[in-house]
Amino acid sequence: MSNLWRVTTDKVSREKENIMRTGNIYQIANGYMGYRGTLDEFGPDELVGITLAGIYDRVGDAWREPVNAPNGGFTKVTLDGKDISALATRIKKHRQSLNLANAVFERETDFKSRGKILKIKSTRFLSADQPNSGAIKYSLTVDKAARVRIHTGIDYNIWDLNGPHLLKLTAKIQNGILLVQGITGETAKKVAVAEAIDLDFGSETQETRGNKNLRVIKLDAEANKTYTFYKYFAVYTENDPVKTSVEEAAIKKVQEAKGCGYDECLNRHNAQWAKKWDYCDVTIEGDDDAQQALRYSLFQLLIAAPIQGSANSIPARALSGQVYKGAIFWDTEMFMFPFFLYTCPGKAVELLRYRIKTLEGARRKAKTEGTGYRGAFYAWESQESGDDACTYFNIGDPLTKRNLRTHFRDKQVHISGDVAIAMWEYFKITGDDSLLLEGGAEVILECARFYYSYAYFKKDKNRYEILDVVGPDEYHERVNNNAFTSMVAKTTFEIANATVNYLKQKYPGRFKALAKKIDIAGELPLFVEAADLLYVPPPDEKTGVIEQFDAYYQLKETTIEALKAGMVHPDEYLGAGQGLAVPTRVIKQADVVMMLNQFKDRYSDKIKKANWEYYEPRTEHGSSLSACAYAMVAADIGKLDRAYRYFLQTAKIDIEARYKTYVGTIFIGGSHPAANGGAWMTAVLGFGGVKANAEEVAINPKLYKKWKALRFKLAYKGDRFSVRITQKDVAIVPDALNKSDHAFRVAGQSIVCRPGKLSFVKYR
Amino acid sequence: MSNLWRVTTDKVSREKENIMRTGNIYQIANGYMGYRGTLDEFGPDELVGITLAGIYDRVGDAWREPVNAPNGGFTKVTLDGKDISALATRIKKHRQSLNLANAVFERETDFKSRGKILKIKSTRFLSADQPNSGAIKYSLTVDKAARVRIHTGIDYNIWDLNGPHLLKLTAKIQNGILLVQGITGETAKKVAVAEAIDLDFGSETQETRGNKNLRVIKLDAEANKTYTFYKYFAVYTENDPVKTSVEEAAIKKVQEAKGCGYDECLNRHNAQWAKKWDYCDVTIEGDDDAQQALRYSLFQLLIAAPIQGSANSIPARALSGQVYKGAIFWDTEMFMFPFFLYTCPGKAVELLRYRIKTLEGARRKAKTEGTGYRGAFYAWESQESGDDACTYFNIGDPLTKRNLRTHFRDKQVHISGDVAIAMWEYFKITGDDSLLLEGGAEVILECARFYYSYAYFKKDKNRYEILDVVGPDEYHERVNNNAFTSMVAKTTFEIANATVNYLKQKYPGRFKALAKKIDIAGELPLFVEAADLLYVPPPDEKTGVIEQFDAYYQLKETTIEALKAGMVHPDEYLGAGQGLAVPTRVIKQADVVMMLNQFKDRYSDKIKKANWEYYEPRTEHGSSLSACAYAMVAADIGKLDRAYRYFLQTAKIDIEARYKTYVGTIFIGGSHPAANGGAWMTAVLGFGGVKANAEEVAINPKLYKKWKALRFKLAYKGDRFSVRITQKDVAIVPDALNKSDHAFRVAGQSIVCRPGKLSFVKYR
Repeated sequence: MSNLWRVTTDKVSREKENIMRTGNIYQIANGYMGYRGTLDEFGPDELVGITLAGIYDRVGDAWREPVNAPNGGFTKVTLDGKDISALATRIKKHRQSLNLANAVFERETDFKSRGKILKIKSTRFLSADQPNSGAIKYSLTVDKAARVRIHTGIDYNIWDLNGPHLLKLTAKIQNGILLVQGITGETAKKVAVAEAIDLDFGSETQETRGNKNLRVIKLDAEANKTYTFYKYFAVYTENDPVKTSVEEAAIKKVQEAKGCGYDECLNRHNAQWAKKWDYCDVTIEGDDDAQQALRYSLFQLLIAAPIQGSANSIPARALSGQVYKGAIFWDTEMFMFPFFLYTCPGKAVELLRYRIKTLEGARRKAKTEGTGYRGAFYAWESQESGDDACTYFNIGDPLTKRNLRTHFRDKQVHISGDVAIAMWEYFKITGDDSLLLEGGAEVILECARFYYSYAYFKKDKNRYEILDVVGPDEYHERVNNNAFTSMVAKTTFEIANATVNYLKQKYPGRFKALAKKIDIAGELPLFVEAADLLYVPPPDEKTGVIEQFDAYYQLKETTIEALKAGMVHPDEYLGAGQGLAVPTRVIKQADVVMMLNQFKDRYSDKIKKANWEYYEPRTEHGSSLSACAYAMVAADIGKLDRAYRYFLQTAKIDIEARYKTYVGTIFIGGSHPAANGGAWMTAVLGFGGVKANAEEVAINPKLYKKWKALRFKLAYKGDRFSVRITQKDVAIVPDALNKSDHAFRVAGQSIVCRPGKLSFVKYR
Repeated sequence: MSNLWRVTTDKVSREKENIMRTGNIYQIANGYMGYRGTLDEFGPDELVGITLAGIYDRVGDAWREPVNAPNGGFTKVTLDGKDISALATRIKKHRQSLNLANAVFERETDFKSRGKILKIKSTRFLSADQPNSGAIKYSLTVDKAARVRIHTGIDYNIWDLNGPHLLKLTAKIQNGILLVQGITGETAKKVAVAEAIDLDFGSETQETRGNKNLRVIKLDAEANKTYTFYKYFAVYTENDPVKTSVEEAAIKKVQEAKGCGYDECLNRHNAQWAKKWDYCDVTIEGDDDAQQALRYSLFQLLIAAPIQGSANSIPARALSGQVYKGAIFWDTEMFMFPFFLYTCPGKAVELLRYRIKTLEGARRKAKTEGTGYRGAFYAWESQESGDDACTYFNIGDPLTKRNLRTHFRDKQVHISGDVAIAMWEYFKITGDDSLLLEGGAEVILECARFYYSYAYFKKDKNRYEILDVVGPDEYHERVNNNAFTSMVAKTTFEIANATVNYLKQKYPGRFKALAKKIDIAGELPLFVEAADLLYVPPPDEKTGVIEQFDAYYQLKETTIEALKAGMVHPDEYLGAGQGLAVPTRVIKQADVVMMLNQFKDRYSDKIKKANWEYYEPRTEHGSSLSACAYAMVAADIGKLDRAYRYFLQTAKIDIEARYKTYVGTIFIGGSHPAANGGAWMTAVLGFGGVKANAEEVAINPKLYKKWKALRFKLAYKGDRFSVRITQKDVAIVPDALNKSDHAFRVAGQSIVCRPGKLSFVKYR
């Protein structure tokens, strides 16, 4: 297997900062849970984290965050009575790797202790076939006969940022299966972890101490003989649709896995992974550096994608830990969703079902925020109920040690439109209207209703305005007529109107029922008016630049260097009420430029170029969402060198893990699935020039000069395609099993792609 | 003369903080200039300040502020070669006093030096008859024969907060008259100070050194003989309507004064002062403490009142120095103006002429602030042009040493309506429509136009809203539907409509010309609609409490003590973006309660009471404007004990001078004419229960139990009245020279007051 499918290191991380970053890079996940890339013998101090999707808990006034499970993968060895650990024991050789093809983590370490060498090798995966479970193959070899003790089982010392979340933790053993069970403090949900082992050497006893439920294997190991055992663990929570207790479900799962055997479990897991990559892999010929970074990015998205039927979504730090409260942000719809939409719509729809599931929370938020609004105001930081986990004081100030009042939660209103847009995109690109019927239309209409209740009319200008918002550039809070936000709101009204028209025509009865259910008929004419009269700051007639918000031009012109020279603390936040960037034109991330990407059909290349060039030097890139926005628009307008630099920046963020880990006093380390999604978007939508709508798929290649070819997969209207773009031509291979012909437009040429028939277009 | 007409102290201030406060307490002024209550021998280190009205200058990026003149009142003595000064010489006896009846400052000090006693007595006044000039009578006596040198002349070492403002200072002597002349840096305005002396002993030479233009009088003083001389000084600037140069004007003025003689100058000065008090004095029988505090307050207003024809106004710190940039705030219209309106309308009209003079500046501000508005947006801190002297970073943060972004300037929009309301009040109470014709109507219409351009319409609620403002409670910036501001805006529309109706009917030609000049005819129907549909938060149906602004109730409930316990620096500002009060319900000063006072006819006592009781414990009184608002409403609703306590607080602020002198890092020491105006309002409008409108003067006595009688003067529709209120009855004596009968309503009883005829009404 090529090294482009693997990340590897020979270094052992012993310092906490490195352990944190390495744990991120080497993490595995299966949508149900994540398992950080830590070593078997590590504990909470080394940030071992098994973060569960969709189950949250709050302790006191601290931030609500996802629950971490007890670690069923724990194993620690003593050699002649001495503890062996990568943290303390002398290491002769170490190598750990992550297989991107199937999300298998492997470590191999040769320890030297008291003149003997102990080799440990372990391999682990979280099953893509059986989401509640994971398996580990663990081997050890000594070069000289030695007394070995293996402590393996469940460590229920849990790393939490704002825990402890699992209370009343109890350990037991039952028919040879270890079990730890706890219950969340806030909503009293049971969480159970079971572990089974398959071992044919030594003698086993069990002990529970120091919050570990362990097996102790005594082994008089012979020289140069490899001893291998297999561990199976399973996690269940009361969120799972189990018929029995979570405890019984976990026990059953590990029994089944053990019965099945490690190799067969792995086979089934691999089969799932083969399918994933078959749907979504992107190949960049001629650029291994970009290839690996991109593939690693896709890998991050694949491991984080929610399991079918969960109606879960992907948190901003995926399943790499509890950072950002395990919350779902706009990141998902705007940066991750397109990847799934265009490659595995089955995952895309799951992300949207999450928004349908949390509609009630969005309604509650609308009612209670500010003076109270109508419709659906989606949470800035959304957890399982859709209530907002974002606090009003969301950033700690290292200068004063006080929490800063921020307006992410109450004023970043574009989130509702981001959701509505994704709903509509799903319908347009897949042709599947079932989502609209199962709640999507209701979400869209409630989002439009929210914007109507938020908007004001300016009579003397005959227009609606969206006032007092925070746009993507969070350094400038409470601004009026933010171009991005206003365009999102306007589009939401347009989508609501289109939804109404579609349903009225195709499903008049269901439309009537929906309109009655949410009592919205009287407001629909207002949405039509608002779509027409909502003001979006236009490009300047001369320069083409769009003012990011009202009076942005009145802010002070400065450079990012000059601004940062004024900082007195490296972690001080540049925004919030009095941050250094607030009175200046320095922006946190792409805002107008993001808008030009999202609504690229509405603006000319000239305008995109003018804005890219105006805003790019003023952008501090204080968000990981920024680089890919600049990359995509740069590709769009043919600034391919700049596009490429920003592409690498967004694609390498997690594989290089050089991100900042604090904003203010808040720890933000973890993975960046939005940037990963941005990497895919830049590659396929940017350099590939793909843009689909309900009528056709357009491909306008903007291939970077270094790239010999770009190959990728596309899903469109329920069918699948392989595309290969070179510097001269585009080859499209529709899947032989496709059900229909589809219209493509390659560099302006219209073609029809028939199932199984290659289409080949020269464009240069 | 009773001690109720005099403030006196035997203490000598040597420590800077005390010198500052004493300098405030003992200041004199004549509308043209102020002269701080410092001693003859003091210099800039002792904050000697001769602050000029209406002339400003800016140095570099520092705050623009009024110009201080060179000190023509300087005199210093040496005794047997040793400098004599209250700062360093041993003092046997000292007494300094300020005569409130005529604004004469006197000091008498017995110094002991080298076994001899030198007695110095000096008396000074700034002429109320000849505003450019001042005079000093200076005497000295030694108990044993001694060599005395008197250095007297002009000290042009000038105390400035953000100076130096006078450049190219030159000193000369011409025909025995000392002259110092300089020119302001920013607008190149000449300022000249001349000094003449009348002296009949010793021998005089002149010298210029150390930035002093001096006469040196050598005198071999005999024991127990008193040597007296007289100084006359005059200040002219290019703002004065002089035909010759400012230098010649100043020389001429001191020559005239010297020719006239000190006693005659003082006589003419006293005659002016007798008239002032005759128009405005208030007598509180049975409460000397309140009497003196109140009279001192009125004194402060009288000395600060602008001279006729200057179209100047009264700065927030009057003429006590350069604090608050010598700028005019809403303080003038809302807190000082009523005193003048009801006692000396000739001064009231001058204050309003200032707003007419600065209308162009208000228009410029409207155009350039934010996205640009129409009409007149008056400056939050207004100087001679009406452009805003308030900076966007108007408070220094002692925690970070950075300047805090504040929104006083751009969002405290009630200022325009405050001006319009005062204009209309003047017309209603005086019956004089000349001000409307000479620019007042234009101001009113432009203020309404500003609010229309600022307001938004909420279609789904069928109302206009005033969004994103700062109300009087400056701890909460950028709020929506602030009750005070919205009511001011609504009233402005009403006044604009009434103005239009009045002019149309009475002066149709002039109205047409005005409407054409400012092209406003098409907007007038909008003002009618806005007056009708502008939303002002209503009292809660159950509790009667008016929410100060949208979502105020969502703020955290805390106590002022708890809030202050969180302070880490005694001068930290509680407002601005991240101040401690911002997320809480703690307010800086009366806001809703101020509104209930300003618009007292629109609300019932029950509502006033509910709001007073709700907001009072939540008010931090971080502004000197707060106490009187609580006092007035307390009097209005019969909470007389509380009214009295707040009354004393507002009335004693300057005589006791215990105010705070820093907000953040900004020096704010000086006098408080708004609080002084509040003292008059509480006494006459509050306890006296006076409320006039265009039809009649209502008097509903709310006399405090301790007061045997309250006597005051009133001016109404060009006529004058003396009123005496006891615990049982009200006696009204219209001036014999009154031109008309006038309707009064005393405790509900309608009476007609005929010129010269006593009206007597028992009300209890």
